[in-house]
Amino acid sequence: MSKKQKTFRPKARVPRGLRDQRGGALKDERAMLEAIAGVYARYGFELLETPALEYADALGKFLPDQDRPNEGVFSLPDDDAQWLSLRYDLTAPLARFVAQNYDALPKPFRRYQWGPVWRNEKPGPGRYRQFLQIDADSVGAPTMAADAEMIAMVAECMEALGMARSDFVVRVNNRKILDGVLEYAGLTSGNTDFESQRLTVLRAIDKLDRLGADGVNFLLGAGRKDESGDFTKGAGLTPDQIAKVMAFTRAGTPDRRETCANLRLCVGDSAIGLEGVTELEEIDGLLTALQYGSDRVVFDPSVVRGLGYYTGPVFEAELTFEAENEQGERTRFGSVGGGGRYDGLVKMFKGVEVPATGFSFGVSRLFAALQALGKTGGEDSRGPVVVLVMDKGRVADYQVMVKELRDAGVCAEMYLGGSGMRAQMKYADKRRAPLVVIEGEDERAAGAVTLKNLILGEKLSAAISDNEEWRSGAQAQVSVPRIDLVKGVENMIGSIRADEQERG
Amino acid sequence: MSKKQKTFRPKARVPRGLRDQRGGALKDERAMLEAIAGVYARYGFELLETPALEYADALGKFLPDQDRPNEGVFSLPDDDAQWLSLRYDLTAPLARFVAQNYDALPKPFRRYQWGPVWRNEKPGPGRYRQFLQIDADSVGAPTMAADAEMIAMVAECMEALGMARSDFVVRVNNRKILDGVLEYAGLTSGNTDFESQRLTVLRAIDKLDRLGADGVNFLLGAGRKDESGDFTKGAGLTPDQIAKVMAFTRAGTPDRRETCANLRLCVGDSAIGLEGVTELEEIDGLLTALQYGSDRVVFDPSVVRGLGYYTGPVFEAELTFEAENEQGERTRFGSVGGGGRYDGLVKMFKGVEVPATGFSFGVSRLFAALQALGKTGGEDSRGPVVVLVMDKGRVADYQVMVKELRDAGVCAEMYLGGSGMRAQMKYADKRRAPLVVIEGEDERAAGAVTLKNLILGEKLSAAISDNEEWRSGAQAQVSVPRIDLVKGVENMIGSIRADEQERG
Repeated sequence: MSKKQKTFRPKARVPRGLRDQRGGALKDERAMLEAIAGVYARYGFELLETPALEYADALGKFLPDQDRPNEGVFSLPDDDAQWLSLRYDLTAPLARFVAQNYDALPKPFRRYQWGPVWRNEKPGPGRYRQFLQIDADSVGAPTMAADAEMIAMVAECMEALGMARSDFVVRVNNRKILDGVLEYAGLTSGNTDFESQRLTVLRAIDKLDRLGADGVNFLLGAGRKDESGDFTKGAGLTPDQIAKVMAFTRAGTPDRRETCANLRLCVGDSAIGLEGVTELEEIDGLLTALQYGSDRVVFDPSVVRGLGYYTGPVFEAELTFEAENEQGERTRFGSVGGGGRYDGLVKMFKGVEVPATGFSFGVSRLFAALQALGKTGGEDSRGPVVVLVMDKGRVADYQVMVKELRDAGVCAEMYLGGSGMRAQMKYADKRRAPLVVIEGEDERAAGAVTLKNLILGEKLSAAISDNEEWRSGAQAQVSVPRIDLVKGVENMIGSIRADEQERG
Repeated sequence: MSKKQKTFRPKARVPRGLRDQRGGALKDERAMLEAIAGVYARYGFELLETPALEYADALGKFLPDQDRPNEGVFSLPDDDAQWLSLRYDLTAPLARFVAQNYDALPKPFRRYQWGPVWRNEKPGPGRYRQFLQIDADSVGAPTMAADAEMIAMVAECMEALGMARSDFVVRVNNRKILDGVLEYAGLTSGNTDFESQRLTVLRAIDKLDRLGADGVNFLLGAGRKDESGDFTKGAGLTPDQIAKVMAFTRAGTPDRRETCANLRLCVGDSAIGLEGVTELEEIDGLLTALQYGSDRVVFDPSVVRGLGYYTGPVFEAELTFEAENEQGERTRFGSVGGGGRYDGLVKMFKGVEVPATGFSFGVSRLFAALQALGKTGGEDSRGPVVVLVMDKGRVADYQVMVKELRDAGVCAEMYLGGSGMRAQMKYADKRRAPLVVIEGEDERAAGAVTLKNLILGEKLSAAISDNEEWRSGAQAQVSVPRIDLVKGVENMIGSIRADEQERG
């Protein structure tokens, strides 16, 4: 290429709403995924991997909590003019996979899958357009045993990640009960406005935390004017209907059986409502037999998210400890995943209902929770041992040292840049190396190597004045015979680890 | 939704050129990736994850072995009219990442990354439009020590996957030597046709295996007519130039130092050529010090793939054992990955050259090799233990059994479908369950459970006639006290494993 040509030089930037991840935190996040996958596998789920791209028409309208399905998806035409979309979750591809391979699959088909999903939405702080999900689903499983298992598994995942039972709770509700309450209140699906009225009721209940009972009362009735004067149209329920819905929102207690008894009163003689209560009672029985008490799983009528999407039980994994939110306020950490029963999964393709239940963790949110709890960052977050290049003519000898360390299972490397001692030490610091190996002329003559503990060195130099720096350096380093390189390095790493564990 | 509306029912199909993967084989492939990642990490590389989508202009023209860069990429416009593309490899995103974060990164920056890449190309048998790569790169590493390390690491990965040294070889060549040969032959980069002539020479050498020396001679000269009468235009070299190029292709020997001596003669007084030979000599010295002999690493001038792309040493991991190809012929398995030095990586963004070297494994090809060698499929490829539902009223008791097994680390599940005994046994077979747990009325009365060994049962029923089937069933099952469920299951799984290991 002629140098006289004007060279186009693009700006190196990660696309809007996307991000790079690296190093220790990324490794910790992967370790978290492995821990969850390990629980899923132990529960008998098999691993599935579907491609990132699906035919747009096959992705269907499974996006939960979204009034505008198929918006918010990245799509492009294939060269045969069929539209492809990047998957926006792992459930729609599962539906496609099950429908495509229905006859060959074991039934129930129980799979777990993890990977990125994409949403073509406006990005925001902590809100990315590519993020990870990790899901488990039982397709073709009609009984409440499948739901109870899903709930128990979610709780077990939390504990596998090191959370205390006081840190989390799985909240369970049932779509059928809400439908039953509405039916008991005289709102029936025969009414053409039923679906939109139902949605308005759901939205109103969802605001209970923020607006209190009075505010929700208005939203269930004629409507509500907020402080700014904006008016939100209400669901238009009568006072009696409102009373019935409000009774439902108050039905939750710390005791699952008591909650079931309350809910039974809320649905009156509604068949669908009674079916929902019976389902919760079955789930309670199974969980109680498995010794999952109310400390880990509660029935909570205020769980609304997903009630418009799922068809039976709905679950939400909530973290109950407090952490700072983006505004710097201390609040409950909140939801890190949800799931439930959705019997219409494969219907879009096959025209028949296939009973299914599943759960999905939001990976980055769960990982943020682990970080807030200090449950991440093992020894893996340390960088490699760095062997310094003191003499460019002796690179082969340094590489042999590195090989000895690697063969003993120690992460290690020789400095591969072209710079001098100071830059090499800076490199080792940036890599978070636990220690460096030094073999200069003096060491070589003595048949020894110097091991410099960077963790201790940092601590010492932080604690003392500048003119003592050299002495602190001397304290943080030891000389070992060249032949004992591996043993010396392992000892130093061992003492660093012990020190870190001691500090907590 | 009114049922009278005509329902659109999309066909459930995976998009053209894409595929689903599941179960044991997928788990084995992941295990392979973990093993490679483990070696990369031990060599001091840190994990990086970049998003699937990049700005199209930032992906640049890094696609190797492709005359039409930027074709073959899936692209779509973002809503601010900037074009996004799905990454086609992991190197171009690395270049973007390094350029974007240059000042903050340790230098050299050593990262590994694995994940899917996408090519918008015509699919074929075994040729998918989404596939996995796993890469390691040292960016900002100018010396041959970085290349030698990369080569040693590739060999170590092969062995970490269970390959014997006789199964693989890493072939190394150097772009500078080819340039030196051409310079020595009087072809210089000053000539405007040089680049295209160089490419024609590369393509001719690449056909040595298939066409033999005579065919390549024609392709280096005036051109070649094949059996069908089709004419391929030649590079137009003179007989003397052809002789020099052919001498280069014959320079390889099983001994690296001898090959270097031969190559030195091939480049005459070309400065760039001599530099290339010196680089190989340095690599030889480092590898020899690390005890990587010619059994694992050879210098091979016939390695051409990538010579147009890389700027210095080029590596190719080749599997030397024979396996059946798609045509059912037994041939050498061939290349499973490649790499080399490419000092222009970050130049597109920053205008300065940053010396870099790297390697990329083609994951599905490498996995196919492991399958051909029988090096995949551990106990993980077995499904879960299945507890049958003999009595629908006693689901809670069966779930408690499952919990006991899971708590002991055994993958287990209760049958969650709605069908009877026969369907449940079929389900267990499809899941590749090692055994099923049966607790019917009789067992319960006796305080026992029956464990049925499905692996042994299958073997026995294959060996005997139908009317003996029942007895074979009896042989394959044992009764254990309910209280010893976990111990009994563990024993049976242990005996299945021992049996499988014995057979191979």
